[in-house]
Amino acid sequence: MFSITVRDHIMIAHSFQGEVFGPAQRLHGATFVVDATFRRPELDADNIVVDIGLASQELKAVLADLNYRNLDDEEELAGINTSTEALAQIIADRLADRVHAGALGEGARGLTGIAVTLHESHIAWASYERTL
Amino acid sequence: MFSITVRDHIMIAHSFQGEVFGPAQRLHGATFVVDATFRRPELDADNIVVDIGLASQELKAVLADLNYRNLDDEEELAGINTSTEALAQIIADRLADRVHAGALGEGARGLTGIAVTLHESHIAWASYERTL
Amino acid sequence: MFSITVRDHIMIAHSFQGEVFGPAQRLHGATFVVDATFRRPELDADNIVVDIGLASQELKAVLADLNYRNLDDEEELAGINTSTEALAQIIADRLADRVHAGALGEGARGLTGIAVTLHESHIAWASYERTL
Amino acid sequence: MFSITVRDHIMIAHSFQGEVFGPAQRLHGATFVVDATFRRPELDADNIVVDIGLASQELKAVLADLNYRNLDDEEELAGINTSTEALAQIIADRLADRVHAGALGEGARGLTGIAVTLHESHIAWASYERTL
Amino acid sequence: MFSITVRDHIMIAHSFQGEVFGPAQRLHGATFVVDATFRRPELDADNIVVDIGLASQELKAVLADLNYRNLDDEEELAGINTSTEALAQIIADRLADRVHAGALGEGARGLTGIAVTLHESHIAWASYERTL
Amino acid sequence: MFSITVRDHIMIAHSFQGEVFGPAQRLHGATFVVDATFRRPELDADNIVVDIGLASQELKAVLADLNYRNLDDEEELAGINTSTEALAQIIADRLADRVHAGALGEGARGLTGIAVTLHESHIAWASYERTL
Repeated sequence: MFSITVRDHIMIAHSFQGEVFGPAQRLHGATFVVDATFRRPELDADNIVVDIGLASQELKAVLADLNYRNLDDEEELAGINTSTEALAQIIADRLADRVHAGALGEGARGLTGIAVTLHESHIAWASYERTL
Repeated sequence: MFSITVRDHIMIAHSFQGEVFGPAQRLHGATFVVDATFRRPELDADNIVVDIGLASQELKAVLADLNYRNLDDEEELAGINTSTEALAQIIADRLADRVHAGALGEGARGLTGIAVTLHESHIAWASYERTL
Repeated sequence: MFSITVRDHIMIAHSFQGEVFGPAQRLHGATFVVDATFRRPELDADNIVVDIGLASQELKAVLADLNYRNLDDEEELAGINTSTEALAQIIADRLADRVHAGALGEGARGLTGIAVTLHESHIAWASYERTL
Repeated sequence: MFSITVRDHIMIAHSFQGEVFGPAQRLHGATFVVDATFRRPELDADNIVVDIGLASQELKAVLADLNYRNLDDEEELAGINTSTEALAQIIADRLADRVHAGALGEGARGLTGIAVTLHESHIAWASYERTL
Repeated sequence: MFSITVRDHIMIAHSFQGEVFGPAQRLHGATFVVDATFRRPELDADNIVVDIGLASQELKAVLADLNYRNLDDEEELAGINTSTEALAQIIADRLADRVHAGALGEGARGLTGIAVTLHESHIAWASYERTL
Repeated sequence: MFSITVRDHIMIAHSFQGEVFGPAQRLHGATFVVDATFRRPELDADNIVVDIGLASQELKAVLADLNYRNLDDEEELAGINTSTEALAQIIADRLADRVHAGALGEGARGLTGIAVTLHESHIAWASYERTL
């Protein structure tokens, strides 16, 4: 199995609902360093997993909809606890949509999986992985 | 599949038995930067994998029994080569015990796997992963 | 010249005033990984720069006043652009106050300088350094 | 499942064939920080995955055949796009050959998998994993 | 004293002249992760060292003239050993020229120093710092 | 001013004398990731700070005298608290001796400073810098 990973980041504000979150129930924020991994069992005709330029570009595009925002005010995220793990899923699903729409190129049709890891600090991160 | 990971560390002394260990048969030591990963297929009612505060606290508690010690003198580890990979298993198993005992909260009952990685330097690390 | 550095972090929300900040004028947030460095020309009687336990504890205490908050709502920061570099100064100055108040121990009277670096992402950080 | 990973690096020149590579069709180069992971379900009689000294030595030997070279001029790589993911496979396969030849010791007969990750920068890396 | 640092990278081929370079006399390559630091004693009217957006953009522009190239073929570098430390100076000097030309904004007139660090691997890096 | 830095590591056991050290008074250990920095105002005739191969080799030689040892049993360190900052000085001074003895080559006569940083974990490190 092969994979490539590209890294980018977002800087957002948000708050959480639920006693389990303690002081993080207050409005606060995070830098999420985002690693998007693309997987496939065999390389394509160019000997790559996916065009890394397109992968970086589409990750940036997905992140642009979240970046420099207060997630509490985003309609699409209304009523959702935007935990690090939940955001990993949202980003992975949006990347999957773009793969299916052809935005990562024809070669990307051979991708079989996506994983997204969000680093919220030097001591905590979360991941979500799914098939394509 | 979702996961969260929390990081902490220990500073221990130990020695190894066996020619394969070369100079590491002498009493020496290590800082192990410890990454504990908790996995589950679906998020809980709070939209998280596990209470990250409890996860960090329980990891710290497990590590406290090893930290600032000469592992050669620990009764529970007598006669064991406390290699990086063996310590990863010991820590993972102790974390699993705490999950089963409810120390990570009721939500943690949905966890299905644990992985522990110990970084012994910038150029070497070891992991152990198991189901719950 | 000797130094020791300890690392911790905060997760905050804030916004900026001024066209130079572009989209960061919107309410957003950041994880700041904070490195606090303490300097002195000679080690103390224990052969250390400062009690690293106290240094970590006092850094955590200084950060607690900022952590999990919307800095736009903090009275002490009213009207200030809480840029990464400005926050580095605020944290360094508060640490300096604690050194002068004896919170880092009597040995810390020998400290001659403090530097604080805030990492806002994997590709950007800011520092402030001052004498004591 | 257990694993250990050792890290080393190479510094090479190469170019790519194919429009998808854009400016990387020109002769350029890369530092690849190489992580080689060895996996097995149970530890050996010494309580380890593999002799980490031998693992590091054999990784270095495999990398020596690529290091400080223009890969475009290497006969064995003629006509191949030496993408990060393709190089990960080449290195993993060569390590597998060495395991099978006994170069990592008799204990290494119990290894069941190898994974190789090449970091081409702080924001991009690729992996290949295979069974043994 | 304040500073901000922004990180980017280049991937280049080159070779060295001189026995001291050993196997690096052959054509090979490197990824240089480049950290550009801008210093000043006081913050500007916006409470910043320099517009971080412009700093990143100008660093990228300076690096674009080197990126994805064989430095042995660059006229401006003819006859120069493009060691990591020498490249750090070249990049710092070109950034300084841009500061003086106003490309980093009027606020950047208050900058007093630049430092550039090039990481050639996880175990080696070089820096050059100068006044403005 | 130019500098180059090379990284290596040691794994040692030791204990501390003095109440300030708390649980670290017990025999424990550490991995120290060691960064050795060499400084000079102008590059040498080869356009480098120092032969990076020799610098790495001499750092490794200095570290070999400490590596895989219980520092409490080393005669040369008897009665010394081998704190991270104290070890940084010991290593820097031994490197300085080697520079003066010509072990880093004739070009190294132009070096004007050395700095050594020891990382004891992902959240703490210490440095010592001196002139040559």
